[in-house]
Amino acid sequence: MSIRRLVLPFLLAAIFSAQAAAAPRNVVLFVTDDQGRDAGCYGNPVVRTPNLDRLAAEGTRFDYAFCTTASCSASRSVLLTGLQNHANGQYGHQHAYHHFRSFDRIKSLPMLLSAAGYRTARIGKLHVDPPEVYRFDRELSGNARNAVQMAEQCREVIAAYDPRPFFLYFCPADPHRSGQVAAELPGKPDRFGNRPKGYPGVKEVSYDPKDVIVPPFLPDSPECRAELAQYYQAVTRIDQGLGRLVEILKESGQYNNTLVIYLSDNGIPFPGAKTTLYEPGMRLPCVVRSPEQRRRTVVSSAMINWTDIAPTILDYAGALGKGSEKPAFHGRSFLGVLDESDPKGWDEVYASHTFHEITMYYPMRVVRGRQYKLIWNIAHGLPYPFASDLWASATWQSGLKRGEKLYGQRTVDAYIHRPAFELYDLKADPHEIRNLADDPGHATVLEDLKAKLRAFQKRTGDPWIVKWEYE
Amino acid sequence: MSIRRLVLPFLLAAIFSAQAAAAPRNVVLFVTDDQGRDAGCYGNPVVRTPNLDRLAAEGTRFDYAFCTTASCSASRSVLLTGLQNHANGQYGHQHAYHHFRSFDRIKSLPMLLSAAGYRTARIGKLHVDPPEVYRFDRELSGNARNAVQMAEQCREVIAAYDPRPFFLYFCPADPHRSGQVAAELPGKPDRFGNRPKGYPGVKEVSYDPKDVIVPPFLPDSPECRAELAQYYQAVTRIDQGLGRLVEILKESGQYNNTLVIYLSDNGIPFPGAKTTLYEPGMRLPCVVRSPEQRRRTVVSSAMINWTDIAPTILDYAGALGKGSEKPAFHGRSFLGVLDESDPKGWDEVYASHTFHEITMYYPMRVVRGRQYKLIWNIAHGLPYPFASDLWASATWQSGLKRGEKLYGQRTVDAYIHRPAFELYDLKADPHEIRNLADDPGHATVLEDLKAKLRAFQKRTGDPWIVKWEYE
Repeated sequence: MSIRRLVLPFLLAAIFSAQAAAAPRNVVLFVTDDQGRDAGCYGNPVVRTPNLDRLAAEGTRFDYAFCTTASCSASRSVLLTGLQNHANGQYGHQHAYHHFRSFDRIKSLPMLLSAAGYRTARIGKLHVDPPEVYRFDRELSGNARNAVQMAEQCREVIAAYDPRPFFLYFCPADPHRSGQVAAELPGKPDRFGNRPKGYPGVKEVSYDPKDVIVPPFLPDSPECRAELAQYYQAVTRIDQGLGRLVEILKESGQYNNTLVIYLSDNGIPFPGAKTTLYEPGMRLPCVVRSPEQRRRTVVSSAMINWTDIAPTILDYAGALGKGSEKPAFHGRSFLGVLDESDPKGWDEVYASHTFHEITMYYPMRVVRGRQYKLIWNIAHGLPYPFASDLWASATWQSGLKRGEKLYGQRTVDAYIHRPAFELYDLKADPHEIRNLADDPGHATVLEDLKAKLRAFQKRTGDPWIVKWEYE
Repeated sequence: MSIRRLVLPFLLAAIFSAQAAAAPRNVVLFVTDDQGRDAGCYGNPVVRTPNLDRLAAEGTRFDYAFCTTASCSASRSVLLTGLQNHANGQYGHQHAYHHFRSFDRIKSLPMLLSAAGYRTARIGKLHVDPPEVYRFDRELSGNARNAVQMAEQCREVIAAYDPRPFFLYFCPADPHRSGQVAAELPGKPDRFGNRPKGYPGVKEVSYDPKDVIVPPFLPDSPECRAELAQYYQAVTRIDQGLGRLVEILKESGQYNNTLVIYLSDNGIPFPGAKTTLYEPGMRLPCVVRSPEQRRRTVVSSAMINWTDIAPTILDYAGALGKGSEKPAFHGRSFLGVLDESDPKGWDEVYASHTFHEITMYYPMRVVRGRQYKLIWNIAHGLPYPFASDLWASATWQSGLKRGEKLYGQRTVDAYIHRPAFELYDLKADPHEIRNLADDPGHATVLEDLKAKLRAFQKRTGDPWIVKWEYE
């Protein structure tokens, strides 16, 4: 046996114990699929989310958290790059013939964390391409409809005897529609992944359609209530997965070494939310628990958006702005304001959505402040395109069959045919019904926000900036 | 020295001479960039193309040859796959932020030829992705604006002592616009790659703007004439490259072993042609010379399209429908009708264009027969999008500045704002000015062609088929 073989174990042990002295700064990014602000801690008294509520009680609940594009692939690319999707190339869906993918040159969050000494693992939905850009050290398997099982699958990563911190990207497929219709139920709702036989380890909670809370943008119809009940059930299933994951973190002694961020990719899978940049499409849950927070049960009014997530995580990892390549993120770290309820300088967000499916070209650019929100519908000459699953939904089809002119508080016609500019006063009109873009009293506001949008596009390298001139 | 080392050279020589007995079936696919039917053999008495005219005299000149999408990347993907671009994934430009690319599963022409024992080489423009799908054995370098130099660069492939047949994909960048303005000339035309100092080996031929032939879809303005003169010069430069390439084939003793196909990717780079599926955008030069033709100087009325090119080449190579994987092409081989002026059963083409630049979403689907042509403008609610180089062109900008209402025979308004359906009687109205889609006398024709379009979309797996229902 050589000297080398004798010495190596001792050396490794020395390194391990030196690193163990400084607690690892682990990160869990928990991303749900099409979940809105439907949780106890967000004021919904019906849907049961005790684990998310507990996380909020121990951390910071953001009340003004926004995705920047209301589509799964595109939004996840924003989370993992800190860039608007118009700048990272993931303009729309990654799968099948949609075939969008990020630029090869992009430095993604997992790769930046790898470079900073993290072990990276993911489980569940990825939905971005190419694999070379979004490379994780480990890809764990598990049924993405069963977040409890997923959590168990992560145990080996969390509890591993490894001095390196871990980054766990945890992505259930709930509460996305599943495309299967519960024909035996009144209203024939989509099942939202709910199975009569349930899932191992999950205590399914079902909801009575008469109990659900129909938000103002949805029609209060039997079909919509039936679908919301299914959606709630899927939300509660995720919550149990979150609960199990926190248990495993605690059992492994890592809970107080781990930044946990819980959020959703985009709004709920109903027309009026997902794929739109109306508030139900982009205003989302975001609960953060940092082991280093001094205050707990913070409700933050800071307006944050999904381009802030990557820089925040890198900030926690001590890797923000380090390394030979410093990616210029479109967002910034909110780590420093987790203890504050009303931090200064967090009063505006921008959003940029272009595609969902490849056939759904409908570029929108948005600036949203505390009071005003401007939506620029670049392709306003087109009818608003429907995602195939939203078009087919019992919620939409039932209204169509009944010939209803209203969908929630908006007319069907206004939903489908949109003007170039929509300007809303969110204080007076939180449901975005009265467009002020043509109101002479708001001409200055409109021009100011248009100028802001254009500056945003220039700053972030938006190819669609040409549309100010060409169309 | 081993027996093996002694015997191997003899064995190789034996194999070489056995193969040499059967002449190699080489292929040259010569693809120009944005060239229209501007050549002597296509009836233009001004532009000098003696080498293409000679090829036509020795082979078959197709009078009804069509690309299926009038955009460089997309059209080249069709040539190299035999599939409509809506089915191969290359929905638009490959480069920069446009970032379209074919599906990984696609079997391209060079790879099918490689599998059939060909050595494959390319020179000049590729403009499709990913490299794994469009893999050539060799990528030759050369200035793509100098087709004469490019031809010389191919000599080593053509003259190689190698018993395998070769496939040479030869793609000049002429006569594409170059984005450089000749400010010293009247009309300030784009230079189309022409340089005052010329190119080594090229005898530049310049044209007087007063001599050029202004086609009916273009305005007869000084700026347009100045640009056409530049364009002609670039066309003549290519022609010298074709001449040199044929010389090298002859010098190498390969000319009579080589199928030569000369065509362009899409119509000329002027508004009204390139990016549109009007006739100037899609009806293109295509000259084919097969060593096995019995007749020469054939002018064929067969309606062929660019999905036919890959199957034709594979047919010549004896590799059509062979191998474990048999790609189902959208076109078919026209090798068997090269000797016929009016072959039966070649009376209809389909076209499918969706993007040029990523910001230029404008899906169109076309069926064109001998008499009628139907264009479905799927996104007809949008203003027709301009390619940045066409928008900036002296030809377009000069008319805009003069406030001209007409552009060629079409109104500017009709060019920009298009109806859902455009139905033209090409016999009575070859320049596609009088839309018959709303004419009650053509209601049956319209319905028949709509049904054909829809069947075409279904047959070829077109994602945009959903637009019959959703919009």
